[in-house]
Amino acid sequence: MIKYIITGLSGFVSKHFLDYLDACGEKAEVYGIDINQPDFNLSRFTNIKCYFREINLLNKDDISNVLFQVHPDYVLHLASFSSVSYSWNNPVASFVNNTNIFLNLVEQLRELHRPCRMLSVGSSEEYGNVNASNLPLKENGPLNPISPYAVARVSQEMLSRVFADGYGMDIVMTRSFNHMGAGQKDIYAVSSFAKQLVESKNRGDKTCKLVVGDVSIIRDFVDVRDVVKAYYLLLKHGSRGETYNVCKGEGIALSELIRMMAKILNVSVEISINKDLFRPKDNHKIVGSNKKIFEAVGWSPKIPLEDSLKDIIDYWGSKLILSRES
Amino acid sequence: MIKYIITGLSGFVSKHFLDYLDACGEKAEVYGIDINQPDFNLSRFTNIKCYFREINLLNKDDISNVLFQVHPDYVLHLASFSSVSYSWNNPVASFVNNTNIFLNLVEQLRELHRPCRMLSVGSSEEYGNVNASNLPLKENGPLNPISPYAVARVSQEMLSRVFADGYGMDIVMTRSFNHMGAGQKDIYAVSSFAKQLVESKNRGDKTCKLVVGDVSIIRDFVDVRDVVKAYYLLLKHGSRGETYNVCKGEGIALSELIRMMAKILNVSVEISINKDLFRPKDNHKIVGSNKKIFEAVGWSPKIPLEDSLKDIIDYWGSKLILSRES
Repeated sequence: MIKYIITGLSGFVSKHFLDYLDACGEKAEVYGIDINQPDFNLSRFTNIKCYFREINLLNKDDISNVLFQVHPDYVLHLASFSSVSYSWNNPVASFVNNTNIFLNLVEQLRELHRPCRMLSVGSSEEYGNVNASNLPLKENGPLNPISPYAVARVSQEMLSRVFADGYGMDIVMTRSFNHMGAGQKDIYAVSSFAKQLVESKNRGDKTCKLVVGDVSIIRDFVDVRDVVKAYYLLLKHGSRGETYNVCKGEGIALSELIRMMAKILNVSVEISINKDLFRPKDNHKIVGSNKKIFEAVGWSPKIPLEDSLKDIIDYWGSKLILSRES
Repeated sequence: MIKYIITGLSGFVSKHFLDYLDACGEKAEVYGIDINQPDFNLSRFTNIKCYFREINLLNKDDISNVLFQVHPDYVLHLASFSSVSYSWNNPVASFVNNTNIFLNLVEQLRELHRPCRMLSVGSSEEYGNVNASNLPLKENGPLNPISPYAVARVSQEMLSRVFADGYGMDIVMTRSFNHMGAGQKDIYAVSSFAKQLVESKNRGDKTCKLVVGDVSIIRDFVDVRDVVKAYYLLLKHGSRGETYNVCKGEGIALSELIRMMAKILNVSVEISINKDLFRPKDNHKIVGSNKKIFEAVGWSPKIPLEDSLKDIIDYWGSKLILSRES
């Protein structure tokens, strides 16, 4: 039986990873750890068995215990303190917590002395201040992180490489670009837009009002179901010590996503701009290259943008009905 | 009265910085902090007043207290856990301690809300795995750190930039190349060679035996007296948020340094190679460019290599006589 440990189990990416793993038909045991209980059902799967352990990754003894009990074949490290704005308000906590949870995990794994592949999930935030001439962003391009969170992410990736090259540990790294998908929190732009539009339509507004930040920015969005497939393939076939962009390779303006969502919902939209939602010194355009991951493991994103948006809208539709009923 | 705080006061770079500052004629108060008592006299100066405070930078309340009491104009952050080999044996402690002492200092400084320039001293180790085509190394070139220590150094530099650009703090950064000078510990190659040769000559050996690692490697050595002058000029005139190489701009093989020392001491040398002293995956050649610091603050190294070596040999000559007498 193949054994997985997933950190950050209660996040929305984990949920989709479990669905993917189960659909693959792989007979696996998954031990999910998180500081919060998952809000999804762990016993709904056909092929995989999933267990939850409430563990704070800042407590290395607890990590050590679970690693020694499970002896995992794969570790998917999704847990992070991932808010950029939190990191500006709490630079030390953001940096220290993100690097400490990674170091606790990797150091306890090193002490296992047992073959185990780990996927260390990073972020397109690592590229930071991007020069337009470097688009689409490639893995060997310059990293200019501009927030405490982004520095923590670059540090984690550099540490991963040192643990891979220096101690022979089996670690693969990603720089994952913007995700979209059902279950994503509404602190993220696209999920927030979908939620606002669905709420407004449900209220019967003639014109849906939408509060936004800078919607002229262009980002590289990947459906979370494509993302978790990339993670699975990198766990199985990625190269040790290498970093891979996980991205669509195409950019789209937030304003265009709003236009598409309005069309799906068949509503008209009135945009109201909130300058507080602008990030200081944001890049106008971020687009990655997925050539490296395609050549290494044959991954490319498959889900059309329209399907992703429909899925997100359906998610908020069901969730808002449920919350009204409860 | 201009006020300085120097972290890592008891190290050999601080001692030379104090000598330089005093010789400048600047009327300054210097508050030196370290976990160890300095082994040099703090009351020997003409123009500066120097005080020592035994403080562990991992204790942020103690840092906060000293910052609020002193209200420094300049902070020279020299303290670090700087051994690469320690970092391989203790990767987590090396990374966490180095980044934590920096973060404690910079965060407490941020809370002072008072103009103060800080020099964050980094290392040529940040360049890591170097491609020969990138020599001499320039500040905007790629960073490929290959040890836990080097990753901590890159992290500190990236955090410095975030604190400078994001919070408007007045921080200047260095990547300092190999130092040589009187007072350097004999865990460093050149100091170790000088000590061994002086000991052997003092014993009256016909041929001086010298235990070495890989002496074919080429490094960029700067006399510590030139280094501290660079730090002074960067504190006074460097640009906020910028990183500067502190290097000679020329490489020399360790074997050539040994030849020069043998000539100064008028001895013949028999080299014995200890493979344990080889570093895994070391670069054959590391040479930096000092164009940026020269153009910014007019600094270039002045002390001839031969003078540096004579100085180191004299230091070990006096020290070994003293230790025999005591």
